[in-house]
Amino acid sequence: MAFQLVKGTRDFYPEQMAFQNWIFDAWRRVSIRNGFVEFDGPVLEYLDLYRAKSGDEIVSQLFSLTDRGGRELALRPEITPTLARMVNAKINSLPRPVKWFSIPRVWRAENPQKGRLRELFQWNIDIIGGPDALSDAECVFTAVDLLAEVGLTSAEVQVRYSSRRLLAEVLRLFGVAPEAGKAVLGALDKRGKIPPAAFDELFALALPDAAVRAGVGRFLNFTGIDSATDGAIAAEVGVAFSDECRAALADIRQFQAALKSFGIDAWCRYDTNIVRGLAYYTGIVYEIFDSAGEMRAVAGGGRYDNLLEVLGGPKVGATGFGMGDVVLGILLTEKGKAPNLSAKLDCFVLTEAEALAPAVLSLVGQLRRANIITDFSAKTQNIGKGLKDANRRNARFAAIVKDGGVALKDLRTGEQADIPAGELIAELKRRLGSTGL
Amino acid sequence: MAFQLVKGTRDFYPEQMAFQNWIFDAWRRVSIRNGFVEFDGPVLEYLDLYRAKSGDEIVSQLFSLTDRGGRELALRPEITPTLARMVNAKINSLPRPVKWFSIPRVWRAENPQKGRLRELFQWNIDIIGGPDALSDAECVFTAVDLLAEVGLTSAEVQVRYSSRRLLAEVLRLFGVAPEAGKAVLGALDKRGKIPPAAFDELFALALPDAAVRAGVGRFLNFTGIDSATDGAIAAEVGVAFSDECRAALADIRQFQAALKSFGIDAWCRYDTNIVRGLAYYTGIVYEIFDSAGEMRAVAGGGRYDNLLEVLGGPKVGATGFGMGDVVLGILLTEKGKAPNLSAKLDCFVLTEAEALAPAVLSLVGQLRRANIITDFSAKTQNIGKGLKDANRRNARFAAIVKDGGVALKDLRTGEQADIPAGELIAELKRRLGSTGL
Repeated sequence: MAFQLVKGTRDFYPEQMAFQNWIFDAWRRVSIRNGFVEFDGPVLEYLDLYRAKSGDEIVSQLFSLTDRGGRELALRPEITPTLARMVNAKINSLPRPVKWFSIPRVWRAENPQKGRLRELFQWNIDIIGGPDALSDAECVFTAVDLLAEVGLTSAEVQVRYSSRRLLAEVLRLFGVAPEAGKAVLGALDKRGKIPPAAFDELFALALPDAAVRAGVGRFLNFTGIDSATDGAIAAEVGVAFSDECRAALADIRQFQAALKSFGIDAWCRYDTNIVRGLAYYTGIVYEIFDSAGEMRAVAGGGRYDNLLEVLGGPKVGATGFGMGDVVLGILLTEKGKAPNLSAKLDCFVLTEAEALAPAVLSLVGQLRRANIITDFSAKTQNIGKGLKDANRRNARFAAIVKDGGVALKDLRTGEQADIPAGELIAELKRRLGSTGL
Repeated sequence: MAFQLVKGTRDFYPEQMAFQNWIFDAWRRVSIRNGFVEFDGPVLEYLDLYRAKSGDEIVSQLFSLTDRGGRELALRPEITPTLARMVNAKINSLPRPVKWFSIPRVWRAENPQKGRLRELFQWNIDIIGGPDALSDAECVFTAVDLLAEVGLTSAEVQVRYSSRRLLAEVLRLFGVAPEAGKAVLGALDKRGKIPPAAFDELFALALPDAAVRAGVGRFLNFTGIDSATDGAIAAEVGVAFSDECRAALADIRQFQAALKSFGIDAWCRYDTNIVRGLAYYTGIVYEIFDSAGEMRAVAGGGRYDNLLEVLGGPKVGATGFGMGDVVLGILLTEKGKAPNLSAKLDCFVLTEAEALAPAVLSLVGQLRRANIITDFSAKTQNIGKGLKDANRRNARFAAIVKDGGVALKDLRTGEQADIPAGELIAELKRRLGSTGL
């Protein structure tokens, strides 16, 4: 009777775990240097938390269960509702802006496919109660800082952004009803993933009036937003701009100016296809894509100013993104940028004298207590075989326990010297550098 | 509509998360210096994996769910079955001994009480295919190394061990049937947690024959095992020792000798009350207790030589322990040994000139890319107020952006000097030390 791995989940053998930890370390290091502090919440939350945020449709996409008290619980599909719950609970005592990050494991009851698993890790960066466009830009900077940190370039990955706020107002100005607006969002979200004709069909279904469709189409296809004035854009789109339009455009421009000041404008471009589906976004939204464009986004996020209020708190501005480990890992591997990681030892202890086996254990205990990464051969064996074991374990030094002392062998240079047992730790620390390997 | 935390789970606000990470870092550091490598598995496993290991009773103690394909899944209550499944799948290619560690989050559908939550983290250390008594002792050394690392002493925590193998054979020699043997294990597992009279009652229920009860009682109460010969122990207990008895005793003595060589015998003592419940242990077993003895064990483990075979693999010796974060955290807090951790910044950037806001962002971006932990004031404000913000954020330095340069203020000494903007990173790195804070 052999047991299988549940589909859509992963085993992390030490080799894969080292790669995971390398990703987690980069996420953590970049978060911290960008001024974020780490939080986490429970994996199990009340199902109603997700219903309240995303509606009843979400339930079929979750792993849920009923506990012995009859309570409906779910495995978190994302951490943003938990973040909002936690911030709401301490809203009056948390200094703002709240800059929090997290590396939650999350679950989605969907069919596994490339880059899409049922169990994954997702790096989350959020700023709550900060200045709007600047906080949006700071989150994007943090994402780009991570991408550069793991060796990716602006030629390989691109941040594509747009404004849900501007799109919503343009739709309103063209007289598009909310339900039709949702259908437009749905169609845009699929654009680029489906053939152009299929998009055109969805788009026409959403906006049956040809004049409206043409007007919205002009807005969606207008690419000069970076340099055109409000008036020029309004003329091009063929609609009289409202104050809300001008405010949304000003917001985009502030965002763009901040990207430029942060030095990452070359990584980012405006793209009206980015809408982030039917989710709860209210302003700038963005997704980060492999420039080769084969896979789903490596990260996505944006401004969500209503969520805290929807979940029972005050109306406080919020913005952030999530980046999954699966797509990032595939991207790095495909581009040959995954590092070569193997476990190393500082020191491997051995002896050929059976009577000295207790002395080996004693030395091993002392070295480990001194924070020197140490392992040993449990068998008494000839030195040549023991050194082979030491090399197989990637040891930097071998300590050969002999009567009256220790021979320390540098496995990189082959050099060997007798050291009094009492001086071994100091000698090893000196040779390894004070911080170890 | 405000949402609650599910009972028996925890929110980790940044302050609590820093403490968690401090524990995780110690677990990881100690594991690595003891020669272990990290692995992890999925949270969701087939329910049958736990049924196969622990029987049908386990099901009521698990959070389980049925996925859309009708498969019965469970949230892992421990990681040992996953470990066995993973090792079994690669049994022929893994070099032995397999020395793996993990820090899984695990779930138990039980009623929360002090030190017992429904969602917790558990450090796991396991050696598979190593030399028996020595591997048992190496695991115990690793546990003690951790306890010492977080500041606990042998006066505060104690490893209590015994041998399930010796107990099983003594019961067999007294003619105790397997079912009665289980009842004895159950009674012993409760000893120390219930009044002596209640234990006596359970013990008498398990062993109704007074002579047998007296004999087993002599074994359980015999405290001279550390120094007595096999013959003396047999005479004291009043039973003729079998070869298996002598082998089990030899195993204990080898284990004790290794504890001594490792230098941790003062932390450990033989205690026949330690049986680890009805679980699957086959040799040395141990639990680690607060000497004050108020709480459940901080860690427990032992030898489990049959598990890999039970889960469809070969018969390979295995030993290890688990240590939970909840009890360890309570212990450290109660003993005043929890560290004082607060988030720190290397540098806080500010300006009082609105025109220099872009220069602030540019500098912030450069510092962060250079791995300097940096945050900034988004508002233009007078310097005094900005420095207050910097101090509130525990910044080591403040960089005040001015026309034509930067004033760098050491917030520890109060000293301030003008630095050309282009030299700021080098200067900060020099002052912070090459590795940052």
